[in-house]
Amino acid sequence: MTKKPRILVTNDDGIYSRGILALYTAMQQLGDVYVVAPDSEKSAVGHAITLSDPLRVITVERQGEHFGWGVNGTPADCVKIGVKAILEFKPDLIVSGINQGSNTATNVIYSGTVSAATEGAIMGIPSIAFSLTSFTHRDFSLSADIATLMAKKVLQNGLPPDVLLSVNIPPISREELKGIRITRMGKGRYEEAFEKRVDPANRTYYWLSGTKLLLDSDDDIDEVAITHNYVSVTPLQFDLTEQSMISRLKDWQLSLK
Amino acid sequence: MTKKPRILVTNDDGIYSRGILALYTAMQQLGDVYVVAPDSEKSAVGHAITLSDPLRVITVERQGEHFGWGVNGTPADCVKIGVKAILEFKPDLIVSGINQGSNTATNVIYSGTVSAATEGAIMGIPSIAFSLTSFTHRDFSLSADIATLMAKKVLQNGLPPDVLLSVNIPPISREELKGIRITRMGKGRYEEAFEKRVDPANRTYYWLSGTKLLLDSDDDIDEVAITHNYVSVTPLQFDLTEQSMISRLKDWQLSLK
Repeated sequence: MTKKPRILVTNDDGIYSRGILALYTAMQQLGDVYVVAPDSEKSAVGHAITLSDPLRVITVERQGEHFGWGVNGTPADCVKIGVKAILEFKPDLIVSGINQGSNTATNVIYSGTVSAATEGAIMGIPSIAFSLTSFTHRDFSLSADIATLMAKKVLQNGLPPDVLLSVNIPPISREELKGIRITRMGKGRYEEAFEKRVDPANRTYYWLSGTKLLLDSDDDIDEVAITHNYVSVTPLQFDLTEQSMISRLKDWQLSLK
Repeated sequence: MTKKPRILVTNDDGIYSRGILALYTAMQQLGDVYVVAPDSEKSAVGHAITLSDPLRVITVERQGEHFGWGVNGTPADCVKIGVKAILEFKPDLIVSGINQGSNTATNVIYSGTVSAATEGAIMGIPSIAFSLTSFTHRDFSLSADIATLMAKKVLQNGLPPDVLLSVNIPPISREELKGIRITRMGKGRYEEAFEKRVDPANRTYYWLSGTKLLLDSDDDIDEVAITHNYVSVTPLQFDLTEQSMISRLKDWQLSLK
């Protein structure tokens, strides 16, 4: 019999969130599970890492048992310190989530959940990010089933170097689910607005708010799949070079002379 | 005569840094300059945005004059709040930097400097990130010349939608410079290590450190250009989809049934 896979679980809603507990429980069917996650909520931290502050690690219990390690850092920090200093071995799989809130379209670049999986891919470890596309839906059962399926498939098939998966799950029941669609990142973003307020000490401050703006509507984009009650599975990479611009820039004849 | 271009300047080393002053001074030759930058250093914040805390804006003087606006947020926050709430107009160009330290190879994804330019591109504004590839070199004169040249070229030629430029400048003199090379993002990353220490109260903490690992060495990558005394100009975009994986994933026959 083959060895049980070792699975590192993290997220950006923090080690005490509902979503990470759901993911932990799902992964326990598949292998030995290790949780290393932020000790508090770290949404929209993007691909941040902590350079100027020391990182501290605490052990965390949930439901009366050892659950994992809490870190005063970002999701990307958790993957780095998890692999390099806490586990001191390379896990077979890294899963991040289950995030509450979608990670689709251009907003993927702000995602702490996805950044943890990206960090895993950079380290050469197959990695998947999971997001339930609702802030309020509290039923993680469909998300857990999808996480189990995707983790199994990735453990079987592997992933090419430098490729990770981002999986978004609509807030619906298994009966309502139409299927699983392979998608690309849509072009969409928030049209930001800043709400100006005055605090009790008469100082001005601003809250960021915004409305979602979807700039394309093809069937094969993440956001559209979700709207049509499909799970979206988007393969991602992290070489940001815009190849088509390279020859155009050469025509600019750049020189200080 | 055409209208003077309006240029927004930001960075991630903070509004009091040397690099932003050098960039501000260079841009003043080209147009009307507006500075909106973090009120403290924000390195390696990646593409973070601030959702859970209010943003505050202060006005900052340097050299006895109004210099710009300081924000208690990330570089991406500064671009958003700069355009939407402080300036309330769309600048013709956004420049970010001059960062102290390189933003090359895979480390680009951790860069606050680049994230500010990415945010500009998302908002449909031509944007450039500038980095001087040294933490200690204090002479910004070559960097300023390059920034002036690149800003001029981008104001003349524009940039396609969703494309930004990341420019890295080696810490050398103009005489030593071999030229300007159009490059792609190299494959390279830090091989992390965590140094474990014990604080005076006997609690463990960790510092992230690491050594740079370059995984390719072609002449057309950013990191190699710098090593050979070239300025590197890398066109970037922010659709992370790995297209080649889409058909392979379709063969996985994903289904819950």
